[in-house]
Amino acid sequence: MVAPPLIPGLAPGVLLFGLMPTETSQATDVRILRDKAARLRIDSVLSTTEAGSGHPTSCASAAEIVSVLFYSVMRYDPHDPRNPWSDVFVLSKGHAAPILYAAWAEAGLFPRERLLTLRRLDSDLEGHPTPRLPFVDVATGSLGQGLSAAAGIALHAQLADSGQRVYALLGDGESAEGSVWEAAEWVGHRGLSNVCATIDINRLGQSEPTMLEHHMEIYKARWEAFGWQALVVDGHSIPALLAAYGQASLTTDRPTVILARTIKGKDFPDIEGKEGWHGKALDKEMAAKVVAHLEGELTGVEKNWQPRLPAARPGAGKDGSAATKPASAPKPPYRLGGKPLAARRGFGDALAALAKTDPRIVALDGDVKNSTYTEEFQTQAPGRFFQGYIAEQNMLGMAMGLAARGHVPFASTFACFLTRAADFIRMAAISNLYLKLAGTHVGVSIGEDGPSQMGLEDLAMICAQPDFTCLYPADATSAWAATGLIAAETGPGYIRLGRPNAPILYGPEETFAIGKCKVLRRGEKDRALVVAAGVTVFEALAAYDELAKQGIAIRVIDLFSVQPIDRAELAASAHAAGGIVITVEDHYAHGGLGDSVLAALAAERVKVVKLAVREIAHSGKEAELLERFGISAAHIVRAVHANIG
Amino acid sequence: MVAPPLIPGLAPGVLLFGLMPTETSQATDVRILRDKAARLRIDSVLSTTEAGSGHPTSCASAAEIVSVLFYSVMRYDPHDPRNPWSDVFVLSKGHAAPILYAAWAEAGLFPRERLLTLRRLDSDLEGHPTPRLPFVDVATGSLGQGLSAAAGIALHAQLADSGQRVYALLGDGESAEGSVWEAAEWVGHRGLSNVCATIDINRLGQSEPTMLEHHMEIYKARWEAFGWQALVVDGHSIPALLAAYGQASLTTDRPTVILARTIKGKDFPDIEGKEGWHGKALDKEMAAKVVAHLEGELTGVEKNWQPRLPAARPGAGKDGSAATKPASAPKPPYRLGGKPLAARRGFGDALAALAKTDPRIVALDGDVKNSTYTEEFQTQAPGRFFQGYIAEQNMLGMAMGLAARGHVPFASTFACFLTRAADFIRMAAISNLYLKLAGTHVGVSIGEDGPSQMGLEDLAMICAQPDFTCLYPADATSAWAATGLIAAETGPGYIRLGRPNAPILYGPEETFAIGKCKVLRRGEKDRALVVAAGVTVFEALAAYDELAKQGIAIRVIDLFSVQPIDRAELAASAHAAGGIVITVEDHYAHGGLGDSVLAALAAERVKVVKLAVREIAHSGKEAELLERFGISAAHIVRAVHANIG
Repeated sequence: MVAPPLIPGLAPGVLLFGLMPTETSQATDVRILRDKAARLRIDSVLSTTEAGSGHPTSCASAAEIVSVLFYSVMRYDPHDPRNPWSDVFVLSKGHAAPILYAAWAEAGLFPRERLLTLRRLDSDLEGHPTPRLPFVDVATGSLGQGLSAAAGIALHAQLADSGQRVYALLGDGESAEGSVWEAAEWVGHRGLSNVCATIDINRLGQSEPTMLEHHMEIYKARWEAFGWQALVVDGHSIPALLAAYGQASLTTDRPTVILARTIKGKDFPDIEGKEGWHGKALDKEMAAKVVAHLEGELTGVEKNWQPRLPAARPGAGKDGSAATKPASAPKPPYRLGGKPLAARRGFGDALAALAKTDPRIVALDGDVKNSTYTEEFQTQAPGRFFQGYIAEQNMLGMAMGLAARGHVPFASTFACFLTRAADFIRMAAISNLYLKLAGTHVGVSIGEDGPSQMGLEDLAMICAQPDFTCLYPADATSAWAATGLIAAETGPGYIRLGRPNAPILYGPEETFAIGKCKVLRRGEKDRALVVAAGVTVFEALAAYDELAKQGIAIRVIDLFSVQPIDRAELAASAHAAGGIVITVEDHYAHGGLGDSVLAALAAERVKVVKLAVREIAHSGKEAELLERFGISAAHIVRAVHANIG
Repeated sequence: MVAPPLIPGLAPGVLLFGLMPTETSQATDVRILRDKAARLRIDSVLSTTEAGSGHPTSCASAAEIVSVLFYSVMRYDPHDPRNPWSDVFVLSKGHAAPILYAAWAEAGLFPRERLLTLRRLDSDLEGHPTPRLPFVDVATGSLGQGLSAAAGIALHAQLADSGQRVYALLGDGESAEGSVWEAAEWVGHRGLSNVCATIDINRLGQSEPTMLEHHMEIYKARWEAFGWQALVVDGHSIPALLAAYGQASLTTDRPTVILARTIKGKDFPDIEGKEGWHGKALDKEMAAKVVAHLEGELTGVEKNWQPRLPAARPGAGKDGSAATKPASAPKPPYRLGGKPLAARRGFGDALAALAKTDPRIVALDGDVKNSTYTEEFQTQAPGRFFQGYIAEQNMLGMAMGLAARGHVPFASTFACFLTRAADFIRMAAISNLYLKLAGTHVGVSIGEDGPSQMGLEDLAMICAQPDFTCLYPADATSAWAATGLIAAETGPGYIRLGRPNAPILYGPEETFAIGKCKVLRRGEKDRALVVAAGVTVFEALAAYDELAKQGIAIRVIDLFSVQPIDRAELAASAHAAGGIVITVEDHYAHGGLGDSVLAALAAERVKVVKLAVREIAHSGKEAELLERFGISAAHIVRAVHANIG
């Protein structure tokens, strides 16, 4: 045992607690790891200087951490980054991408020369990591997301009994993000000891020093209070890092965070520790000087490095994550003319049914399972249900991690609270993960709870993301169908679900498809087309009845699939109905169903009238609010009269 | 001094530390406050039972806290809720709205009978509080936002030297939200001792017990680690609460959190402490039983209550928050043909200029002030610049609090990171606050940093919110103008700002207006209208030149004001250009500029072709990316050719 190194400037009472390797092995290991760290720094400089942009100083502070993790601590196959038994590394501080790429090149996955394609359109070595690269699970670069993804991957490892450990590397600047504390509290509460986070505390943010600078004792107190083992180390001391990761691997009752005190730009002469160097590539002359300095540190011993390969375990995939095809969903149990049910109920029922047939599916809740009806899934498959509490960002981040490892996660809450995780939705789209979202309690039709609980911008938020499927079922039967469709679809998806009970509109034999609408009323003499979805479908049908009494025929479409949209049927019906289209939606006017219909018909030269919520809503009764905010049957009738000329 | 009360079940070592009032005054006070608590419970039951929905049990757990705050601790004028010297109460757990309304009715602001209009369309006593009510600063009900707003109000109080203290009441369930920890870390770091938070730790969430239940020692450790004085009390003991608030008011170096151990549904026979009662009104029979029980506790002494009126201080408003009119902004300093500059630079320059002339303006940053150029504002007005670090939710929440008290806050970061605060933007819109947002680094034109840093959905997110003005200037001059316009506008506003340097397009005498576009190229024989904004304006102008060489005239509009939109000019120009409209935007296809134009022209029966980013973007050079993602001059030229027939 060697005494732990002293850390300059550390508050009294904050001591490194850990094991050390024997002096002999350490002497060898440390030399290799020191060389590797220098090589990682060199490659980070060369690639960013070649690109003309990037964050070399943010790589430099993490060089010993990455070296120790990649070349001593982690078990993984450098030639098979998707190996299901390999330990997993998540780079939460995504702007340090060059050192991640350098680490894999150094491990042998691809030639070092490719590092010089950094940030080019023809290279997947992008400015920040994305899963276009086989060794990246989730896109990072929007800070504060990596720990949640790591938690999801760690849950997978537990479910699969795969023996994987997950190492997340965070920056100190991003530790200010609330999402980090959501992840910290959840992982600590769950005691996920296969998660090990490292914080590269280099003291400097982009534009000024961080809030806590090098106050390691404050970091330690915070993480301990959140249920973690917190080890403070000199982040440039390889023995100290080895000791800390050794201690982490021996701890089985809680997660560990390594609080690594580091220097930004470490080992870059004239740059290290200085402000004003965030996100700046070195010019060629400066780079040459820095590289020469770093090359002077190399001993050549690092060529002796051998990977620690993972041990295959039969467990991986037994959790369903290896199942690649969905089991077909059973038929919905509702009958035409049966008891009115909410669309959200159809979702909850279907998810519970899928729990039995599709082992890939897991569910995550934000303490509203009795409103979204995912409590039915919990009853069916308690081991695959995760209570995320009121922390939507972490719920989404964990779902991203689970999705990256083969699960099909359904994360659900009130649609309005999905806005809490808008940035995670954005990053899930960039990651092209099979993330499934369900948002309930949409629109003014929720009634008395008032505007703060009404999802009125969820379609704008989610349809904006390319490749996101968005379904908006009107009744329990179509909600049941939507759940199965979205589960089977490869890619991210969203189901928009109303709160009120509604009649059963479709029988159990009705078939639904992504990208297809339902024409509910159609005649030879239709004078307008009304496109509705969700609660407004019933308003449109009431308007149809009222207008029919007046001798006016209209066509009524239940859009069902907002994205992709049934352009062909909409165009054909619009023209068949005299080129007059009225859209009606329980959503704000911008970015909703109406805009999707407008975009689909943009080339058709038809007239579109959009009925939507155009002001801040209010508490009240469902019917009153539909009327007050302009989306009731009466408003549809008036719009038809006003436009059929 | 009286010994602090013991709290059942409290972990050893967690002791109440505080002062107690004298026994004599306490004896009187406590009886009044106990009566008031019973009355608050009674009114919470009666109003929710009358409404048929609501959260009476979430009110009951907070009755003593609210009673002590409203009827002993806070100095305020019950008949003048906007009094600038009054202490401020923020109900972060907005679902306890009935007790907030009851508290003001009991204080005398309005008759108790009005409480029975709860949740009705014709009453502003909505399901969750909104600033339609004069005693509400920010809408709450989306959990975890109140503490940030309280921080903003507390900053105002410091700037104004108004002597106000700010009391935020949080729930325990919402303490899982990361935004709470963003606020906690910022307020703790700043040492804002005029903030006092209370957490109503009633152990039960909506669907199950909270993560920490009654583990008061964990709460205490967390808040202390975040820099707060944390006092654990029995939240139903009026003497204990009085002692804790007394201690809080004596503490001048840091904020205080009162960790109140409470029982959900407290004092409701057969309901208190039981699961399954979240968000449920009592039926009439049950309500009668509970009210009878509570009435039995009344002594009548509460009629002796007198408010503690605030002391007028000459300081209030000297910070600029009392200035109601903006000073006119100076002319922009850029000249036609001058050095190319980024639009974001025009924003930063203008904000710094406004710092000198408009004392209402404050600026908040998310550690990117050297990218957004708000560092110029910091130099001009360091006391009105607040570094929010990388915690966008809290940045927005603080801006909401500042806006509620008369400031005009500009919160800025990369546009993509505003998605982090989408729910705060939603609630700011519901609150109709004068919040000003600037989002820089929009679109693929940022180049090498890659998709995680590209704001491609910000217009979808923000334009969805009713009443949000959205300006999208193309050059530094129009960005300067946009900054002044948005500062002067009453209501929430957003400026979308590109990263790249661009030619100066407009001279210093050019005038801009909200809701007005700029027709940059116009002829008698225009065969198509191209609508662009930001970086695509220059692509459209290049396309104009290329097509002119080919003998094809097009009309080019710089949209500038996305919301409200210049419908009249767009319609006139569209028809003048043969009914062919091409929109081109550095934004995703859904919810952006193109959809706004489509909606504006929905009744015109023109043909619209939307050029926008339709897939996940990539790192690369600006020009390469505009070409690759279909929004370059060459794509506009092709679209014109393909559509002019």
